[in-house]
Amino acid sequence: MNTLEKLYQHLEKVYHFQSIVSLLSWDQETNMPENAFEQRSQQMGLMASLVHRNKTSELKKILQDVNLQELKDKDFLIVKRVKEDFEKWSKIPEKLAVKLTELTSQAQYHWDKAKKNNDFQLFAPYLEDLVKLKIEEANYLGYEACPYDALLDDYEKGLKSKDFENIIQPVVKEFYQKRTQEIDIQNPFKRNIPVNEQLSFANQFIKDLGFDFSRGRQDLSSHPFSNAISIHDVRITTRILENDLQYMLYSTIHETGHALYELGLNTELLGTPYSETCSLTIHESQSRFWENNIGRSLAFCKFLAKKLQEYLPKYFNDVNPEELFAVLNEVKPNFVRTESDEVSYHLHIALRFELEKALINQEIKVQDLPSLWNEKMQNYLGLVPTSDSLGVLQDVHWAAGLFGYFPTYSLGSFYAAQIYQHLKSIYPQFDNNIEKGEFDFVHKWLKENIFSKGRMFNSNEILQQATGSNLKNHIFSDYILTKIKFTS
Amino acid sequence: MNTLEKLYQHLEKVYHFQSIVSLLSWDQETNMPENAFEQRSQQMGLMASLVHRNKTSELKKILQDVNLQELKDKDFLIVKRVKEDFEKWSKIPEKLAVKLTELTSQAQYHWDKAKKNNDFQLFAPYLEDLVKLKIEEANYLGYEACPYDALLDDYEKGLKSKDFENIIQPVVKEFYQKRTQEIDIQNPFKRNIPVNEQLSFANQFIKDLGFDFSRGRQDLSSHPFSNAISIHDVRITTRILENDLQYMLYSTIHETGHALYELGLNTELLGTPYSETCSLTIHESQSRFWENNIGRSLAFCKFLAKKLQEYLPKYFNDVNPEELFAVLNEVKPNFVRTESDEVSYHLHIALRFELEKALINQEIKVQDLPSLWNEKMQNYLGLVPTSDSLGVLQDVHWAAGLFGYFPTYSLGSFYAAQIYQHLKSIYPQFDNNIEKGEFDFVHKWLKENIFSKGRMFNSNEILQQATGSNLKNHIFSDYILTKIKFTS
Repeated sequence: MNTLEKLYQHLEKVYHFQSIVSLLSWDQETNMPENAFEQRSQQMGLMASLVHRNKTSELKKILQDVNLQELKDKDFLIVKRVKEDFEKWSKIPEKLAVKLTELTSQAQYHWDKAKKNNDFQLFAPYLEDLVKLKIEEANYLGYEACPYDALLDDYEKGLKSKDFENIIQPVVKEFYQKRTQEIDIQNPFKRNIPVNEQLSFANQFIKDLGFDFSRGRQDLSSHPFSNAISIHDVRITTRILENDLQYMLYSTIHETGHALYELGLNTELLGTPYSETCSLTIHESQSRFWENNIGRSLAFCKFLAKKLQEYLPKYFNDVNPEELFAVLNEVKPNFVRTESDEVSYHLHIALRFELEKALINQEIKVQDLPSLWNEKMQNYLGLVPTSDSLGVLQDVHWAAGLFGYFPTYSLGSFYAAQIYQHLKSIYPQFDNNIEKGEFDFVHKWLKENIFSKGRMFNSNEILQQATGSNLKNHIFSDYILTKIKFTS
Repeated sequence: MNTLEKLYQHLEKVYHFQSIVSLLSWDQETNMPENAFEQRSQQMGLMASLVHRNKTSELKKILQDVNLQELKDKDFLIVKRVKEDFEKWSKIPEKLAVKLTELTSQAQYHWDKAKKNNDFQLFAPYLEDLVKLKIEEANYLGYEACPYDALLDDYEKGLKSKDFENIIQPVVKEFYQKRTQEIDIQNPFKRNIPVNEQLSFANQFIKDLGFDFSRGRQDLSSHPFSNAISIHDVRITTRILENDLQYMLYSTIHETGHALYELGLNTELLGTPYSETCSLTIHESQSRFWENNIGRSLAFCKFLAKKLQEYLPKYFNDVNPEELFAVLNEVKPNFVRTESDEVSYHLHIALRFELEKALINQEIKVQDLPSLWNEKMQNYLGLVPTSDSLGVLQDVHWAAGLFGYFPTYSLGSFYAAQIYQHLKSIYPQFDNNIEKGEFDFVHKWLKENIFSKGRMFNSNEILQQATGSNLKNHIFSDYILTKIKFTS
């Protein structure tokens, strides 16, 4: 076996270890009995230590024999990227990696309890410990302007707080306090539909969108997520309110977008950047693309109306696409990010970005979060959450240690708008096909232009190759202003 | 840290690795998408290699510093056992351990397909490979009389084919072709009850039996099993026929018996024999005890009738304990082992024992199995299966590599009868309590006399300490003859 084959074999081994970590985590969120959480965090810690060792000291032994200069094409791009990864991973001590994994496993358990009991203090000590560890991590990784930048890099390589501010602030400014006219129709999603019927509808519906159940599944959890356990095992979750189908449906479509990306990756050279997702920005561009650009278009509402009639005739025999479209595009502040319209969504992100940046940069304390959250909600959205469960406790991200993740939701949305605009320009029959539920041409284009690039290019390079230009900030605004009529 | 603490810490690490293997396996049987099976078998193989290394070469380094002579009491018993384990594990090359794990993961997938399609040939090549590997394993382990004895030892330490023959043959002889009078009542379990309602009944019912859902769960799978992922995470599965509640219920009670054992183990020194189950024989004595000795008693039928009325009033408002008792104790051959009465069950075991012994001792070939199975069914039970799915493909055990497991079902039943007789003799109010659903005194006695002994004594020592005597063969016959009236 030559050195390159050895490297690829080693990376595949790490890939399998990471699959196992993913399964442990998926199981914790969906199935694990309550009292097993301490054992689970120990299992996760053990695996984290294995993964870390194999990504650092073990990888080093193999990598030192691989000469980048002798490689070309795919191999060159892969090894270049792996060497960069190695440099980054090696900065983190194994002990810290293990502690972080164990603590996030525990913190998620306590966050869930805190949210269910509307008691921030049940979660606060875990969050305090996590913030400490993440600051430690940032210090190991190194940064120029501030520690938070070191963490941002995990989700969008090279992104700095300043860059993101320059992108998000104009959007916040442009859409601040913008509203649409209040809708005077009965919201067609608000009907009482039992959990089982909603879940079975969701499963039929995402199959129509292209989700392959021989390579994935959908379950219930506290916070919806997508988890690619392995290339042929991509699992998503959703949550259900019996009196509001939209609550489940648009979260399910969002996660389906993530899953379609994972299911469309190259299936060779597993564990290498050739078969990996590019970044969280590209990942969110996919989920937000399906959830919003496709999912809230009139063409899609026509398709959705047909499917509601077909799969849930008891509840939706009278549904009307225009009404679905109107409800889905009403701009009106909401306490909850994942239930927000396409516009006020970004005010939610700005709020989280500012808070997590200040936390990691040690400008505020965990104990300040609930009141700061409510203050910012009042400023940005004109709403004060009625409880911490609907406020500072609503998202799992901080419990999962994902500081620096939120910005990719907005970035991803702006990428998605550009991809959508490009697709509409090259496919004149776009809306026509969507209306008929013909999504294959979209899957094909995405696979060819985005998924198959793996992680061998950065987000912006992929966007450029796919749409012909860098991220253009005006495209998102144009897209919104074309579709949505504001009154204020 | 002293050497003993180091040893215990190492064993706890192995315990966590094994928990992960258990979760991978549980997930494969309950949730895993179909196309993920190859990745899963690779994940299992990787973990098997880790477990093996930590149970052999890594353990050796630690064990060599521990001096058994300096230890006493609990520590002495634990280390003595661990040294024996080490000797045994070290005989198996890591490569074989990995191959066996990967192959059983694949074989179970193909067995499931073969069973669903009633096509033995879909499974045969995997079974052939497995038999080869198990013979190889037997050769590494060593044996006196025959290779099969080396495998038997995995499930009941020290048991030889000859010993088991001496136990099972008198039972087979005594109960061969024994029947009870045909029952002329309508079987009260045979009502159409949807899957969801049956599962929710089962969950309520096993809670009444003592199953703790904060430390476990119940799901559906092709073949019911119990899987102790960790001390606070014990999962059982069942399967459901819409027109026969007994099919689900008695398998669920069986698995609950296994789970109660796991949930009752000592919670300290995890990964050592102090907190492990003793043997498969003791394990099956627990499942069979609840399924049969308790579960098919008149007292229990009275309790069950009440619960059926309470939890499923729509279907069971008229149920009568005497009718349940009659149906549950009808002796009448059945194609399927897990649905068999307490008597003909052991003819099923004799059949499987003979076939697997002959396979491993290379007296027959995999391709001979379907016809030999049917022949033996005709001889022992007077029935010829109408399909291989109902015949040679019915059990998962061989696909899971569990050659030598079946005898413990019979042994466990005989142990259970002796435990039951003992309990009835020391608790004069036994039936009275069972009828009222008061099981706490049983749990307490089992915990004190069996569970808390861990694996620090062998099966027979535990039985002796618990009931005051070695296994007495006549107790099972006495128990049966007291309860059941045969006509032929």
